[in-house]
Amino acid sequence: MARAAAASGRGRFITLEGGEGAGKSTQARVLAETLSARGLPVLLTREPGGAPGAEAIRSVLLGSGPWDGVAECMLHFAARREHVARSVGPALEAGMWVVCDRFADSTLAYQCFGQGVPRAVFDALAETALGPLRPDVTLILDLPPESGLARAAARGEANRYEALDPAFHARVRAGFLAIAEAEPGRCVVLDAAGPPEDVAAAISAAVKKRLALP
Amino acid sequence: MARAAAASGRGRFITLEGGEGAGKSTQARVLAETLSARGLPVLLTREPGGAPGAEAIRSVLLGSGPWDGVAECMLHFAARREHVARSVGPALEAGMWVVCDRFADSTLAYQCFGQGVPRAVFDALAETALGPLRPDVTLILDLPPESGLARAAARGEANRYEALDPAFHARVRAGFLAIAEAEPGRCVVLDAAGPPEDVAAAISAAVKKRLALP
Ligand SMILES: Nc1ncnc2c1ncn2[C@@H]1O[C@H](COP(=O)(O)OP(=O)(O)OP(=O)(O)O)[C@@H](O)[C@H]1O
Ligand SMILES: Nc1ncnc2c1ncn2[C@@H]1O[C@H](COP(=O)(O)OP(=O)(O)OP(=O)(O)O)[C@@H](O)[C@H]1O
Ligand SMILES: [Mg+2]
Ligand SMILES: [Mg+2]
Repeated sequence: MARAAAASGRGRFITLEGGEGAGKSTQARVLAETLSARGLPVLLTREPGGAPGAEAIRSVLLGSGPWDGVAECMLHFAARREHVARSVGPALEAGMWVVCDRFADSTLAYQCFGQGVPRAVFDALAETALGPLRPDVTLILDLPPESGLARAAARGEANRYEALDPAFHARVRAGFLAIAEAEPGRCVVLDAAGPPEDVAAAISAAVKKRLALP
Repeated sequence: MARAAAASGRGRFITLEGGEGAGKSTQARVLAETLSARGLPVLLTREPGGAPGAEAIRSVLLGSGPWDGVAECMLHFAARREHVARSVGPALEAGMWVVCDRFADSTLAYQCFGQGVPRAVFDALAETALGPLRPDVTLILDLPPESGLARAAARGEANRYEALDPAFHARVRAGFLAIAEAEPGRCVVLDAAGPPEDVAAAISAAVKKRLALP
């Protein structure tokens, strides 16, 4: 598993986080293209999923439930462990730039801040599944929940979280902002309310500033 | 979730453990019948599974893979948490006698002793998923692996573990014996080589001796 990737001259690990419809999947694709266009080897991946076993867990997570909160966290970290062991870790070892649509911060924001699972559960699972692995940069796309939910609704499909009450989404947003405040060296909060081109430009600038782009 | 069940006058939690084909499922059924015949309210259940979400996880566990060892432990504990939260815990609270075909010791014996996952991973997950919940009595059905595998083979279906090498099964057996040695107040090792009636009689006697049967 890749550790202290930035320090050792291996790949770079960039995650995109934020609430429903903030633009994570859109911007992950754009960032992957931007990095590729600079000649960098890129792995574009997502969570939950990103490896065969992890995608199988994703199907169970989304297809069954409602889950006990602790069980749900364990399913997310089981998927994350598979993803890191089979995809993210090997890619970082091989020197790739990994762009990941959601990662551990989503579990902390949704399950702990949003649903009230104790923080100690998250910490124990993160330590067990990831050891010292952390993203080099985490881009937090910040948006009022009602805007993100409207975007997601316009997209068509609905998921289990989108149906939850506004107070839940407000707690998730506040959770992401608290994570960013606690780890300013890793996290950048970006205003995601503008048009996609503006958000993409802000992301490019942030990545350029934080990581030595060739 | 039921805690210190025996002490509080609530139900009783009895688990059956052991290697492939040791007779756990057979004896769990017999024990459940024996207790029912004494007028006790009994829940006969199994792991992985025993609750809807847990059975969904069981399908993924058995249907996908091979899993990273830590991810596999997390899937087992996610299923266990659902099982305890939805089935075992409520049954114990209601005063039932829960007879469970495999429980946490199987994860310790198979994943840690058998497959080399660090003990600390098990301890962190057990603490996170179960807190202080422990079986009141654990019946460990001990049998040379070749006998159990022969029984299981005669039964027809084959599973992933049965296909593993003899050294793996020897480590699992030694693991169960080590668990019993470490927790003599909870565990009873029973010779499972005799005919089913003899094993059932030994189980009845052990349960009678350990728990106050009415
Ligand atoms: N900056 C933007 N302005 C307006 N619409 C946007 C913007 N970014 C993305 N969209 C649109 O909003 C919808 C949600 O975007 P996207 O799927 O990228 O969000 P997401 O954060 O990945 O959502 P989810 O949390 O559901 O995975 C899509 O239809 C997308 O085209
Ligand atoms: N004491 C016994 N002597 C001989 N055969 C037995 C005995 N107990 C069970 N069997 C038979 O051996 C096979 C395995 O028994 P059983 O399914 O109860 O074992 P198990 O421990 O639950 O196995 P598994 O680990 O595969 O779940 C069955 O066909 C059963 O009828
Ligand atoms: Mg998305
Ligand atoms: Mg069985």
